[in-house]
Amino acid sequence: MIFVLKPEVPQEIIERFQRHIESGGFQTFLSTGTEHTVVCLIGNTAAIDMDAVVQNHDFIDYGKRVTEPYKAVNRSVHPEDTMINIGGAIIGEGMFQIIAGPCSVESEAQIIEVARSVKASGAAMLRGGAFKPRTSPYSFTGLHEEGLRLLLKAKKETGLPVVTEIMNQTQLPLFEEIDVIQVGARNMQNFDLLRAVGRFNKPVLLKRGLANTLEELLMSAEYILSAGNSQVILCERGIRTFETATRNTLDLSAIPLLKKKSHLPVIVDPSHAAGIRGLVAPLARAAVAAGADGLMIETHNDPARALCDGAQSLDLLQFGELMKDLKRRIAFEGKTGGASLMKTGRTI
Amino acid sequence: MIFVLKPEVPQEIIERFQRHIESGGFQTFLSTGTEHTVVCLIGNTAAIDMDAVVQNHDFIDYGKRVTEPYKAVNRSVHPEDTMINIGGAIIGEGMFQIIAGPCSVESEAQIIEVARSVKASGAAMLRGGAFKPRTSPYSFTGLHEEGLRLLLKAKKETGLPVVTEIMNQTQLPLFEEIDVIQVGARNMQNFDLLRAVGRFNKPVLLKRGLANTLEELLMSAEYILSAGNSQVILCERGIRTFETATRNTLDLSAIPLLKKKSHLPVIVDPSHAAGIRGLVAPLARAAVAAGADGLMIETHNDPARALCDGAQSLDLLQFGELMKDLKRRIAFEGKTGGASLMKTGRTI
Amino acid sequence: MIFVLKPEVPQEIIERFQRHIESGGFQTFLSTGTEHTVVCLIGNTAAIDMDAVVQNHDFIDYGKRVTEPYKAVNRSVHPEDTMINIGGAIIGEGMFQIIAGPCSVESEAQIIEVARSVKASGAAMLRGGAFKPRTSPYSFTGLHEEGLRLLLKAKKETGLPVVTEIMNQTQLPLFEEIDVIQVGARNMQNFDLLRAVGRFNKPVLLKRGLANTLEELLMSAEYILSAGNSQVILCERGIRTFETATRNTLDLSAIPLLKKKSHLPVIVDPSHAAGIRGLVAPLARAAVAAGADGLMIETHNDPARALCDGAQSLDLLQFGELMKDLKRRIAFEGKTGGASLMKTGRTI
Amino acid sequence: MIFVLKPEVPQEIIERFQRHIESGGFQTFLSTGTEHTVVCLIGNTAAIDMDAVVQNHDFIDYGKRVTEPYKAVNRSVHPEDTMINIGGAIIGEGMFQIIAGPCSVESEAQIIEVARSVKASGAAMLRGGAFKPRTSPYSFTGLHEEGLRLLLKAKKETGLPVVTEIMNQTQLPLFEEIDVIQVGARNMQNFDLLRAVGRFNKPVLLKRGLANTLEELLMSAEYILSAGNSQVILCERGIRTFETATRNTLDLSAIPLLKKKSHLPVIVDPSHAAGIRGLVAPLARAAVAAGADGLMIETHNDPARALCDGAQSLDLLQFGELMKDLKRRIAFEGKTGGASLMKTGRTI
Repeated sequence: MIFVLKPEVPQEIIERFQRHIESGGFQTFLSTGTEHTVVCLIGNTAAIDMDAVVQNHDFIDYGKRVTEPYKAVNRSVHPEDTMINIGGAIIGEGMFQIIAGPCSVESEAQIIEVARSVKASGAAMLRGGAFKPRTSPYSFTGLHEEGLRLLLKAKKETGLPVVTEIMNQTQLPLFEEIDVIQVGARNMQNFDLLRAVGRFNKPVLLKRGLANTLEELLMSAEYILSAGNSQVILCERGIRTFETATRNTLDLSAIPLLKKKSHLPVIVDPSHAAGIRGLVAPLARAAVAAGADGLMIETHNDPARALCDGAQSLDLLQFGELMKDLKRRIAFEGKTGGASLMKTGRTI
Repeated sequence: MIFVLKPEVPQEIIERFQRHIESGGFQTFLSTGTEHTVVCLIGNTAAIDMDAVVQNHDFIDYGKRVTEPYKAVNRSVHPEDTMINIGGAIIGEGMFQIIAGPCSVESEAQIIEVARSVKASGAAMLRGGAFKPRTSPYSFTGLHEEGLRLLLKAKKETGLPVVTEIMNQTQLPLFEEIDVIQVGARNMQNFDLLRAVGRFNKPVLLKRGLANTLEELLMSAEYILSAGNSQVILCERGIRTFETATRNTLDLSAIPLLKKKSHLPVIVDPSHAAGIRGLVAPLARAAVAAGADGLMIETHNDPARALCDGAQSLDLLQFGELMKDLKRRIAFEGKTGGASLMKTGRTI
Repeated sequence: MIFVLKPEVPQEIIERFQRHIESGGFQTFLSTGTEHTVVCLIGNTAAIDMDAVVQNHDFIDYGKRVTEPYKAVNRSVHPEDTMINIGGAIIGEGMFQIIAGPCSVESEAQIIEVARSVKASGAAMLRGGAFKPRTSPYSFTGLHEEGLRLLLKAKKETGLPVVTEIMNQTQLPLFEEIDVIQVGARNMQNFDLLRAVGRFNKPVLLKRGLANTLEELLMSAEYILSAGNSQVILCERGIRTFETATRNTLDLSAIPLLKKKSHLPVIVDPSHAAGIRGLVAPLARAAVAAGADGLMIETHNDPARALCDGAQSLDLLQFGELMKDLKRRIAFEGKTGGASLMKTGRTI
Repeated sequence: MIFVLKPEVPQEIIERFQRHIESGGFQTFLSTGTEHTVVCLIGNTAAIDMDAVVQNHDFIDYGKRVTEPYKAVNRSVHPEDTMINIGGAIIGEGMFQIIAGPCSVESEAQIIEVARSVKASGAAMLRGGAFKPRTSPYSFTGLHEEGLRLLLKAKKETGLPVVTEIMNQTQLPLFEEIDVIQVGARNMQNFDLLRAVGRFNKPVLLKRGLANTLEELLMSAEYILSAGNSQVILCERGIRTFETATRNTLDLSAIPLLKKKSHLPVIVDPSHAAGIRGLVAPLARAAVAAGADGLMIETHNDPARALCDGAQSLDLLQFGELMKDLKRRIAFEGKTGGASLMKTGRTI
């Protein structure tokens, strides 16, 4: 059950209302949007007389029963799209952003060359792994702290906000200057990590697990929002099926379904889904058409020598060509985006 | 191994060449395109000296070893796209066609109302089931011969070519006037049916099975082509995965992959894939952007009362709205299509 | 809804009752067991006053509402296990039978050698494919009619009942002397074939499709029973999953679930499920322990030279060794079985 | 590549050999078995002249090239079964152990009642969750430290070693007195956690992820062994498939496959796989017959009131009945096990 409050209710009154509700044996938490504040109740709310509560508290606009197991991420709680401002690049509600960069940060020369090139092509953010989850204990696992340092150097050089993956909550202090913390597919149900990034005041890019349903993805986002952080970007990156022609099966139905059920922005990672360079462009185009809010595209200055995932990386020229095509398509969808957004002055 | 012949080799010489090859213990079959004829050899061709064969037969242009298990459907055998002319509506190589109509033909009034409306909206073909595969023996299985008769009546009224599903090869004589024979997902590996439609001179719409790989789909198409019928349209319609939010998971990677490996046209059925009306439009848009050659969209004059699959059918108004959007998108992709094509005079 | 009749109701009275029910807009069919006859009603039975029907017809013992979509195969319709007598080898209700033989009948010498050997080891039935479904149109598809002839010759030599696969309903006349007609995994939802074998008076071995749920398997069996043939053996043979270490994933949960929901016997084919010879024995042992009524095990006199599926076939010696072990296990479970059953004189 | 050393080589010589190898650009680690020590080399070993290395170092017995990506868990590195002694209960190589207990520790009375009862029935270890991974942030997540305390109290009362799940590596200090640390299915690829338990000197129960292949499971075990801890028990607990009749599909092929490829013990959790109480007994029987080394069975004193997973829990009486049956089956397989083992005096 949720109660949508009228505008400009003083914080003190809201807290008194929360304590009142909690004294009845429920959990509560606030969802604070740009337009209104919502008080969410968790627990067996069947016995609550919702209309009486609304009538007894004149600062409540209306109440609503929410039957899905997710509350804070539910669009019925927050009907407008969530917009997230990442160092000036806004994602959500018609603002489309492209994140590009290599699987792993490998050297200063590499990450700066990639950053400059993808920025010139129109990417709005730089990705690059410093801590890499690898199936084998003997594989390259990234440059760790040094990787984060190089990423921040590339940010300083280009102004691009940076996205990088966290492996466990003890690493959080290292992520203070990172713009977006990525929670990878294998950690989508690492609940302690979800709670920890929920208490950290940074945008989170939450990737769908290989074998997780959309409802489970929303429940994992709920962990983050219910801990206090509402800046979550959902990312579809392919699921595991019997088909072996692609590494995973990209589930583009996820875009309209997630956007219907939730107010959070949804992006697509066609590179990891397909695992094949030649499929990145058609799947990226399809994701734009299906209504995604952004893309994450693996791009490397020298894919043949990449330390991981080279087979799915575009080179800088290929990425530039794809960006020209994608810009036309983003405009066709009536959306705006790209690094130039930072100069549009639009704020949230 | 294949041998691509020079233009205009007399039939008699080709047959003599086939007998010569077959005397060495191989099977052969012909793939006859608009531009050249290809002789395909099946068997362990490792021991054949391909260059010697080419030098000894001056009507051979060149030879090629094909390592994939599919030969006739292989793009390396037939590098240009296959175009299929269905009563004037051409599909393939930049010609995009939309097939619309109800799951089942239910009555004369219904099918004619739907046919007129979808034609007016720009559909190029009419679909409608007369023989319906149903999980339960107690469900409605279509109007059978009467369904075919009504479909042909709608064709006569509107000029739209018709597509309908066959359940087994003994029904073939009933399909003489049908324009496209659909082999459904559950029959994708009904090999006797595949051979039978391969000997029948009609375009075939071959749907991917729920649990079949793309290679298996191409092998099933190979059954049809190797039996002599090269007019095959492949159709992606979703695969079975663990995700329960949609009926099946639409695998749009199938489009670029199939088009890379094969010369056959590829269409998408978003209605059966999703099983949810609200997903049809976004998935249709994504399919156009991913490079499909057409769409098959379930459309009903009264979805709430449809005898099957009503939950996924668009009504006539919704279909009309979607068509307006899709026409802009088809044009954006630099393709042409729709019923008006019949007047463009373009032929194959 | 079902009505269980009292013993020895005359046929004439039953038919009059069926016509009475059908006049109300329902379908009916009979399930005739050894102990009682059941009249099944199909249709929206919500409005029927079941108790009134029972009171008004004194030949009815009791009525029952059945909510599952399958009726005739439902254990609530037929609480005792169905037993099927195949040329003296009885399967079901404590009678465990093993079917052995090659993937394909290849020659008279081969099938007779295999038949003699597996009989000596204790197999109760001989399997061997005459019509083989193959993914590729260029693969060996069996010896066809000649294969059936050789199988019947092996039956004559050894007395073993024979099991072989049908590909389509036009082949049924060829199967007059075959003891068990196998409907393969790819044909599990070939509904016209199911209806046809349902009208043929022979035991049917129905294999679960690669991507079919247990409910769909029961619905396919329902096609056969509702057409009049209640001699159906269900066969679990592995489903398609993401795991590539085995050809399919054998789902042994199917055994207790199918036996709970249905009265039909359930056997397991570990050879096709695993696709690896070394897994056949442990999976066969597991199937016995999980409550299966039988096993189908691929056995070849020379697996290295088998024309198909050699990698999963046991040789005759390996099969003999496995049978010694399985006999101990069948006895441990308190069951009986094997070719010797034919001499027990137990009849149904 | 591995080098198996002769018995009783002094530690100093082994370390000098490791430094020698590492100076050539390889990683090395030791696998120390009861009978011999193995030096594993990681890296591109193609250029190493293995025979020369053996000839030049007389303390090496023989060398072997291992092509699988997993080395330390590979049976070719360690041909005999690994046996793990858990507080006197030995698992592996003919020693079969049953772990029982509730999903969650709920109260002192509950866990002690369950512990006493399952011990009396013959269980060798007690399980009980103190930290519970839950899909929803609003579900009960266990009693945390208090849960561990109660579990240790139950251990003290009954003498049963205890198994409980860890959620992240910062909890390790709390697990000092726990006998077996469980890494759950959702954490199977939480690589930092795997490394951390690899540096902790406790047996680890590693559950297969819902969508992980057997090779990935072995690679995750490799993380633990390569970090120095060779006491790993693998656990099959069902994978995610399209089938919805069971919560997951138990993959019993995993048992013979894992035992062929690796020397580690393999147990099965039928309770979580099926999610249905009635399937636990048949699947447990099947696991014994397929060659498992143990079982983990959810057991609760009052399943109807369990705070989680009640639908799959056996009550104490049901568990007692199942144990009587399983003991006969374990003996039939020629294995020994159960709490009484602690008195056999057999040690490793």
